[in-house]
Amino acid sequence: MRVPLEGLPERVTIYEVGPRDGLQNEKAIVPVADKAEFVVRLADAGLRTIETTSFVHPRWVPQLADAGELLDALSRSPHLRYPVLVPNERGLDRALDHGVAEIAVFASATESFARRNLNRTLDESLAMFAPVVERARAEGLWVRAYVSMVCGDPWEGDVPIEQVVSVATRMMDMGCSQLSLGDTIGVGTPGQVTALIEAMVAAGVGTGRLAVHFHDTYGQALANTLAALRAGVTTVDASAGGIGGCPYAESATGNLATEDLVWMLDGLGVETGVDLAKLAATSRWMAGRLGRPSPSRVVQALSPGD
Amino acid sequence: MRVPLEGLPERVTIYEVGPRDGLQNEKAIVPVADKAEFVVRLADAGLRTIETTSFVHPRWVPQLADAGELLDALSRSPHLRYPVLVPNERGLDRALDHGVAEIAVFASATESFARRNLNRTLDESLAMFAPVVERARAEGLWVRAYVSMVCGDPWEGDVPIEQVVSVATRMMDMGCSQLSLGDTIGVGTPGQVTALIEAMVAAGVGTGRLAVHFHDTYGQALANTLAALRAGVTTVDASAGGIGGCPYAESATGNLATEDLVWMLDGLGVETGVDLAKLAATSRWMAGRLGRPSPSRVVQALSPGD
Repeated sequence: MRVPLEGLPERVTIYEVGPRDGLQNEKAIVPVADKAEFVVRLADAGLRTIETTSFVHPRWVPQLADAGELLDALSRSPHLRYPVLVPNERGLDRALDHGVAEIAVFASATESFARRNLNRTLDESLAMFAPVVERARAEGLWVRAYVSMVCGDPWEGDVPIEQVVSVATRMMDMGCSQLSLGDTIGVGTPGQVTALIEAMVAAGVGTGRLAVHFHDTYGQALANTLAALRAGVTTVDASAGGIGGCPYAESATGNLATEDLVWMLDGLGVETGVDLAKLAATSRWMAGRLGRPSPSRVVQALSPGD
Repeated sequence: MRVPLEGLPERVTIYEVGPRDGLQNEKAIVPVADKAEFVVRLADAGLRTIETTSFVHPRWVPQLADAGELLDALSRSPHLRYPVLVPNERGLDRALDHGVAEIAVFASATESFARRNLNRTLDESLAMFAPVVERARAEGLWVRAYVSMVCGDPWEGDVPIEQVVSVATRMMDMGCSQLSLGDTIGVGTPGQVTALIEAMVAAGVGTGRLAVHFHDTYGQALANTLAALRAGVTTVDASAGGIGGCPYAESATGNLATEDLVWMLDGLGVETGVDLAKLAATSRWMAGRLGRPSPSRVVQALSPGD
């Protein structure tokens, strides 16, 4: 039954992260042909923005060592955006070599995670991104900035909202077009999410440039998404079938499942352009490739007897 | 981090259904001593209202065949409420024999579920409850009414809100004190939940007499709870560890986990009186008794290496 709720947007853009954030955090290494089929099927299910892969060094992310090969296997369309994660200038060079038009860069809201994930201080990591963003913009690329650990950090615990805003505005000041606020360990709750978005808007980053990126580690992802939508956000990150996780969280239940998000938005009458049956079929197929059941509640519910 | 959200209540009463709705829908039959320990530990974790068992005939629910024995094993306290599900007058007699002070009766919002679950038409099932409620009230008992399938029915699909309101108000008119709106198959979304609560209030059943009962089959339970709290509801049903399910749903992911609810409410600064660590330890213990991992995301996240 479709029943709208006051204060929600009419349309939400789903930023699909399954092929990159999902597969990067799965143990199984998926063959490049299957990855290409995954992206094509996601697009066929109506997803229009699909983060396809990453040019992080294969030593750190062997799951995505075939980034160039995958990009070369995908045909492009003016209706589809295939952003690619780029960690540094060398990654940008590779992205440009493969005709990428959209990139994403990845910073931490906390000193601890910057040191552990990027092996740099927070300032050093931001200094590393500045020339990447500058060159990407000069080449006409669209640039998204991820900021992780925005609701908490496994080493530091609570993360002050001002600290998130400070890192985020520094990324946007470099020339990024979109900012994705990531609750990497999934500890946030709806009040914190609302306050964070309000603080971003007060700092000059409007909801039109914001996205939210929730992990369902503590079961909060969809409730937090509802709060973000009420606060004016219209771009939501999600991973088909809920694949992926965070190796830094104690228990990695993984990304918000795109199907669980679409179920809610369909019920609310919020347009996404996504065909849920096609999407769930794609996630069931990928779950078979990964050799484990999909953690998405909707995929499980729509797959009786699996 | 505790960050409140405007429009939420200061305090929420959790109506714990694990020992009854949870265990009733698990395959394993738990010994009565373990059930008694479960209830005692739940109370020790701060839960003040615990639906302990059911006097449904053991032929239908063999898991709870020891209802009388369990009740006799529990010591009572003026601070604790132990409601018991009662299907008919014979069940009421047994409840009274065991000193029960609070009962719950169970109706369906749909004709199909009434016929399948109670083997009666909707009108016949309501006619069966009338004398139960009347006698219970005359004996000074507190009576809760469950109405199930309020957001959808596996045979009928969409359930019109007016139909839910009609059944619910008939139950309340019999003299029930509280009404629990049950999305038994977990298909509802936040707009539908909000509209349903507003319709109940418009029909004269205020939010102070309402409770919500969500299943997480499609991952919507916590987002729906957030919507219900915003609409003024202050009593929420949940099952410790997320145990139980609905045998009538295609895939029974089960009740909203009490831990996932408490995590959200703790983060929002909404008081529940529940000690999350004690509760999660209880659910881990019960998961061991049931021989399967807890479906609660929070219990999983707080149990690394399990």
